[in-house]
Amino acid sequence: MKQVCLGFLGCGNIGGGVYRLLGEMQETLKERDNISISVKKILVKNIDEAVAINEKKGLCVPRELLTEHAEDVTGDPAISIVCEFMGGEQPAARFMQEALAHGKHVITANKVALALNWDKLQAQAEESHVGLWYEASVGGVIPVIRVLNVNLESDRIDRIYGIINGTTNYILTRMAQEGKDYDEVLQDAQRLGLAEPNPATDVEGMDAAYKLSILASLAFHGRVTYEQIYREGITQVSAQDIAFGREMGYTLKLLGIAKKDGDVVETRVHPTFLPSQHPLARVDGSLNAIFIHGTYCRDMMLQGRGAGDMPTASAICGDIVEAALTEKPHYPTFRNTAHPDPAFTFTDNWQTCAYIRLSAVDRPGVLARVSECFAKESVSIASMLQKEAADEGRANLIIITHPAPEQSIRRALSLLDESICRLEAMIRVEQE
Amino acid sequence: MKQVCLGFLGCGNIGGGVYRLLGEMQETLKERDNISISVKKILVKNIDEAVAINEKKGLCVPRELLTEHAEDVTGDPAISIVCEFMGGEQPAARFMQEALAHGKHVITANKVALALNWDKLQAQAEESHVGLWYEASVGGVIPVIRVLNVNLESDRIDRIYGIINGTTNYILTRMAQEGKDYDEVLQDAQRLGLAEPNPATDVEGMDAAYKLSILASLAFHGRVTYEQIYREGITQVSAQDIAFGREMGYTLKLLGIAKKDGDVVETRVHPTFLPSQHPLARVDGSLNAIFIHGTYCRDMMLQGRGAGDMPTASAICGDIVEAALTEKPHYPTFRNTAHPDPAFTFTDNWQTCAYIRLSAVDRPGVLARVSECFAKESVSIASMLQKEAADEGRANLIIITHPAPEQSIRRALSLLDESICRLEAMIRVEQE
Repeated sequence: MKQVCLGFLGCGNIGGGVYRLLGEMQETLKERDNISISVKKILVKNIDEAVAINEKKGLCVPRELLTEHAEDVTGDPAISIVCEFMGGEQPAARFMQEALAHGKHVITANKVALALNWDKLQAQAEESHVGLWYEASVGGVIPVIRVLNVNLESDRIDRIYGIINGTTNYILTRMAQEGKDYDEVLQDAQRLGLAEPNPATDVEGMDAAYKLSILASLAFHGRVTYEQIYREGITQVSAQDIAFGREMGYTLKLLGIAKKDGDVVETRVHPTFLPSQHPLARVDGSLNAIFIHGTYCRDMMLQGRGAGDMPTASAICGDIVEAALTEKPHYPTFRNTAHPDPAFTFTDNWQTCAYIRLSAVDRPGVLARVSECFAKESVSIASMLQKEAADEGRANLIIITHPAPEQSIRRALSLLDESICRLEAMIRVEQE
Repeated sequence: MKQVCLGFLGCGNIGGGVYRLLGEMQETLKERDNISISVKKILVKNIDEAVAINEKKGLCVPRELLTEHAEDVTGDPAISIVCEFMGGEQPAARFMQEALAHGKHVITANKVALALNWDKLQAQAEESHVGLWYEASVGGVIPVIRVLNVNLESDRIDRIYGIINGTTNYILTRMAQEGKDYDEVLQDAQRLGLAEPNPATDVEGMDAAYKLSILASLAFHGRVTYEQIYREGITQVSAQDIAFGREMGYTLKLLGIAKKDGDVVETRVHPTFLPSQHPLARVDGSLNAIFIHGTYCRDMMLQGRGAGDMPTASAICGDIVEAALTEKPHYPTFRNTAHPDPAFTFTDNWQTCAYIRLSAVDRPGVLARVSECFAKESVSIASMLQKEAADEGRANLIIITHPAPEQSIRRALSLLDESICRLEAMIRVEQE
């Protein structure tokens, strides 16, 4: 039987989940895969605190496994696989690089460290002839990394749409179902532990952008950095727009969108209206889902638990078993960065439809003047709807455009005469 | 650059699709993976016929690649990977075994040959230290094989629900949408090439049962044979029951269901009512989807193109690239059969809810006598609905039961007095 020793960097909720899962599955894994997996060393900030926290969680980690020194994990010759559970960019990325340099396979779910240090980690893994696994870094238990890296390796992916942040999907779902406004639902989500006390990373789309950077890089076989992703969060979304959208047949989601046409790439994270019958529109609550389209595979959708300690632990342990059985890894390293990136041209002038809500003065001629602004920029209007507004003497004017260049839509909006109509919301619409 | 020579056994629609895809992607795969993949030999029944068919399809396969002798493919020392596209159990299984015996990796999408010859192929692959890949054998491009084999290797899967036959899903979807009866839609599907001239394998659930045998074996880590799967097709399904079900909040699908509780396993293929809001209920037309639940991962759903030459080719080429890059395969052979199977106990007395439609004489006392039959077998009724029937003096009596043992439901139905009520339909309901 093959004996495999793991080292953990960190042991929070996810690390604890992995520890628990490995304990519960140890005998089964011996039987199934003829491997005996044990944890030899765990890096924690403070041993006494860690012991207290583990006791409180009912997690039986022997004290002698704990260390406050990273090199006890990254440098121990008996350890062949290092699992990183620290979160955040540093020192996680540095420790992973050290572990790779010491010839250890590295497994991580840390999208931030990965998205920002891809090149260095990849280079180190190749130099040391070891593997870097990160299935849980995007979409938790959703198998999207392996699907892009292996199943679809021979395909040409041209677009990806992802609901890849559970917190924002939970908030938007409740706003839609209960007609409540953002602030109210956010506070509730915080009370329930579904949103952080400082929710910026989630609600401003950073978390989704890190993940999209990983997905797009894998799908398009060239590096797409975090900085190259346009980003808009959900803090400005109103229950009213969700309701108007629904009336018109659309459901609002925070989507990560990546498209490639020839060498032109667009990557963006923003609230998006989808046709309500689109399979992604039905992915509610904290669920995640990723929709992939390729030349040969056509459309595929993967959905599941994007977070949670045990679902994430399940994905990580899948990586651990694979790493443990791997003699000579050929994947899933970030293969695509081993070659010079193709010369992607990043565009911020993508084609999009838009939902536009204007608060217009309710008098003759206003509609004509609004329409004129769009006509000037050759933005064609697909439908227009007038709704009563709360303010006396004004109306909500809702416009859905046909596909048009983003910049043309923005210019058209800038032409509007503020004395007669005010831009209240602009939300992109994908008609896929 | 690694040079990899393939041999094809057969070259029909899927083989042709793989040939085309590899041609179109050859330069890209050199760049991405540093491998050059070429097809060296293709087994066909008759060379002249094959040349004519390929010409008609616009597929440029050089005549000198074709052979009528299997051993030119399975025995050629220059060929390292053999792809089987013949379909059917024999001679496909025999040829695959020969290829494995000659030390070649084998890739197949042939669920029949696999489901029926699993043990022999597995033993041969192990003996020869080569791999057996079969991602496209279930659900076409849906990555379910690798997900079960790798991603969820450390999990305990306790149930799977699959829409794994596109023809029947297409027929049921159109019956539901158009209110048409089975025969009419089947004929239309045959005209459109979506059902075979002899549709038995699809509509009687055999195809789904072969696939479920593969899924259940992988998920439960023990062999589930085709014979152990209860099977009922869609030929008896009426548009009326689909409509009544819909009224009650259910959508009808032909599901492959596999559950495991302790060592007790149930595997069955039959028409099933699902709550209309279940994600599988919304998978329409010829799409396939597989819903997986495990102890740690919780629920996951994978959906995509279950058939079609290019989606299937995409999945197969994913396998080809992985096999080409693999020095020493550790998966995805049928790992679980390497160990003695756990002592599964197969049950045909699963818990299920049932939709039951009776044609009852419309007079006092009938309802009481019907209820009594169910009460005698301790089958509890969740809801009952009376609907007008076409026959004068009779009514449609629709019953939905609470979960009960299958055999109790059958016994209750056998107690019904045929002179006052006739069993018109019994369709199982999953409340998941």
